[in-house]
Amino acid sequence: MDSVRSHLNEYVTALGRSPVRDLFEISLDPALISFAGGNPAPELFDVDGLAAAFSAVMATEGGRAMQYSSTDGEPEMREAAAKRTTEMGVPTSPDQLIITSGSQQGLGLLSQTLINPGDVVLAENPSFVSALQAFGLQGAEFKPVDTDEAGVIPEALESAIEKWHPKAVYLIPTFQNPTGITMSAERRRQVADILAASDTWLIEDDPYSELRFTEEQQIPISADQRLDDRAFLCNTLSKVLSPGLRVGWVRGPAHVLERMSAAKQANSLQTSTIDQLAAAYYLAHNDLQAKLDGVRAEYRARRDAMLEGLREGLPEGSAMTEPEGGMFVWARLPEGHDASALVYDAIRAGVVFVPGAPFYIAEPDPRTLRFSFVSNDPEHTREGLSRLGSVFDRG
Amino acid sequence: MDSVRSHLNEYVTALGRSPVRDLFEISLDPALISFAGGNPAPELFDVDGLAAAFSAVMATEGGRAMQYSSTDGEPEMREAAAKRTTEMGVPTSPDQLIITSGSQQGLGLLSQTLINPGDVVLAENPSFVSALQAFGLQGAEFKPVDTDEAGVIPEALESAIEKWHPKAVYLIPTFQNPTGITMSAERRRQVADILAASDTWLIEDDPYSELRFTEEQQIPISADQRLDDRAFLCNTLSKVLSPGLRVGWVRGPAHVLERMSAAKQANSLQTSTIDQLAAAYYLAHNDLQAKLDGVRAEYRARRDAMLEGLREGLPEGSAMTEPEGGMFVWARLPEGHDASALVYDAIRAGVVFVPGAPFYIAEPDPRTLRFSFVSNDPEHTREGLSRLGSVFDRG
Repeated sequence: MDSVRSHLNEYVTALGRSPVRDLFEISLDPALISFAGGNPAPELFDVDGLAAAFSAVMATEGGRAMQYSSTDGEPEMREAAAKRTTEMGVPTSPDQLIITSGSQQGLGLLSQTLINPGDVVLAENPSFVSALQAFGLQGAEFKPVDTDEAGVIPEALESAIEKWHPKAVYLIPTFQNPTGITMSAERRRQVADILAASDTWLIEDDPYSELRFTEEQQIPISADQRLDDRAFLCNTLSKVLSPGLRVGWVRGPAHVLERMSAAKQANSLQTSTIDQLAAAYYLAHNDLQAKLDGVRAEYRARRDAMLEGLREGLPEGSAMTEPEGGMFVWARLPEGHDASALVYDAIRAGVVFVPGAPFYIAEPDPRTLRFSFVSNDPEHTREGLSRLGSVFDRG
Repeated sequence: MDSVRSHLNEYVTALGRSPVRDLFEISLDPALISFAGGNPAPELFDVDGLAAAFSAVMATEGGRAMQYSSTDGEPEMREAAAKRTTEMGVPTSPDQLIITSGSQQGLGLLSQTLINPGDVVLAENPSFVSALQAFGLQGAEFKPVDTDEAGVIPEALESAIEKWHPKAVYLIPTFQNPTGITMSAERRRQVADILAASDTWLIEDDPYSELRFTEEQQIPISADQRLDDRAFLCNTLSKVLSPGLRVGWVRGPAHVLERMSAAKQANSLQTSTIDQLAAAYYLAHNDLQAKLDGVRAEYRARRDAMLEGLREGLPEGSAMTEPEGGMFVWARLPEGHDASALVYDAIRAGVVFVPGAPFYIAEPDPRTLRFSFVSNDPEHTREGLSRLGSVFDRG
């Protein structure tokens, strides 16, 4: 254990001034229990199912799979994506979407197509760091929309639109990253009303909604037909099948998809033909919902262990979200704590979390931190949180 | 045949004013013999070899293959890319390159990282349309460098640099697209001398050099160590293994690779993990050069059929290049011909080529056209060219 300690101390020294950037690399060390990553649990991947899909595709249409293909995506994959989007409550035909190399490419293309330097993008505060990077690369300026436990506060959205004349509103309404918060149906209607009356694009990011532990399915805001001319719904197979595949899609108005397609062609030509065909084959020949039932049950048990452990382990006066799906719990330590400083002590104790401050667009709250609950089974979660217990000052 | 004719007539009507954009889609029609595409011949793909690679990767490290991975590329693939680049005459270690989702993403990232609106990019005239698109998307202005049958003319490059103060020079020195021209060793040295004395980036695109039919291997300009701080060498598996995989790489100075990596993260996070691992496995377990020998022999026979057929079929007074590798022959019709107009007649006759004008940065020559010689076996090439014979006005 002493050698592990000194090894972990080296990390802390190496971390220097930019801790979050290196946290993910550090979190790969087996000596650490990591709550830091945004990775799905690999032991729950359907390796056999996807292996069979690759084999079948290579056996039956290997020449096609290895060849160039269209920028907008292979017909089978576009159909599968349209079917999935429709099942999520947003009626969609294949020509209403383009395939992207993961939803990050969708966000990147939307940014390149819609955002000019100085344009304002409204987002939940805190929000998904990589989306902010994509918009930031085009020179976007971010303004926060206030949220509460039911998501975006309509009045706050309305006044932010009035004040900032944003080019776009970026939202993750379901099991938000990093907070885990889900916007209520009522709020979604109110947000749709406000956006329908505005001239603002909606960029709705929906990677987590099928990882839900309750019966109640929330319908994306983009389902509101009044938004058909201004809403983009980004989705992906990353959280439900495999992030290594890089297959996602964006649903949106045709004239913008056309410009995104031109940008995609210049950026990267196309998404991997073989990955698209394998993913489409997988979706056509497997009952994804049945397979997801197993993943959801396990993730639910892991969330339960996380919430239980945090209730016990967080210092008196802490608060946390209790998400009904997704991957993340968000916590706030009592007055006087600094999560960015505590992360060093946590690593020395053999556990990693992500401090919350870097997720903020404005007024970062140094007392916040994000825990991924999907990466560890209940036992490891308990062990990790017990290590953390010694780190938190129990005021 | 009449129904085919009327069917082809429909195409011509549909083509409207933007023929080249739709040519590739049209060229998929089995009623046509197409010399238009830039696709390698799928019947020569090593489907079994790549299928075995996917199977092995999924069987031995399926969880890893399906998971997120690093933006810069998986270690095995970076090592394989470094080894290949070294074998091509440019000594390279894995940390001197990043993996890209095809070399088109390499060009896109270079453009995003190096080019600001209004920056001048020098290029061969004509040049690769999709590269021009990538630079154009960032607002580059293009200026031509004059070439002859040995590639870029050094004096022309020198005076263009002096006159335009370009941010970058984009070159395809070996089996250039669209002309098929290869720059001589002497010219490469002269170009390196000029660039070493300038403050211009070199973007060297080298997708075709292993498709050569002669013993003589041309070494990339980037091999000159004086250019280590300013040269980017873009490479890819698209033409030697599979374009559907989308695995390429860029070798270049570390501080720029780092910025490209940040842009890649925001654009698309990473290249497909599974495709990278399968490609690396394939390269480690197969003798690619032995397999390429078969491809080269067949492409050589196809080129021979193409050159022979063109010598016979092109109107008196035409000229054409005679490439010693790659995929393309470039031809110029006699005075008074317009290749963009002839393409309609060609489609009616059941054959497609690409008119040369859209490849030009400046002063498009309407008499030029590009033929891909790799897509058709000698028999189909002869048939296609005989159909063309009736189209060309033999003045």
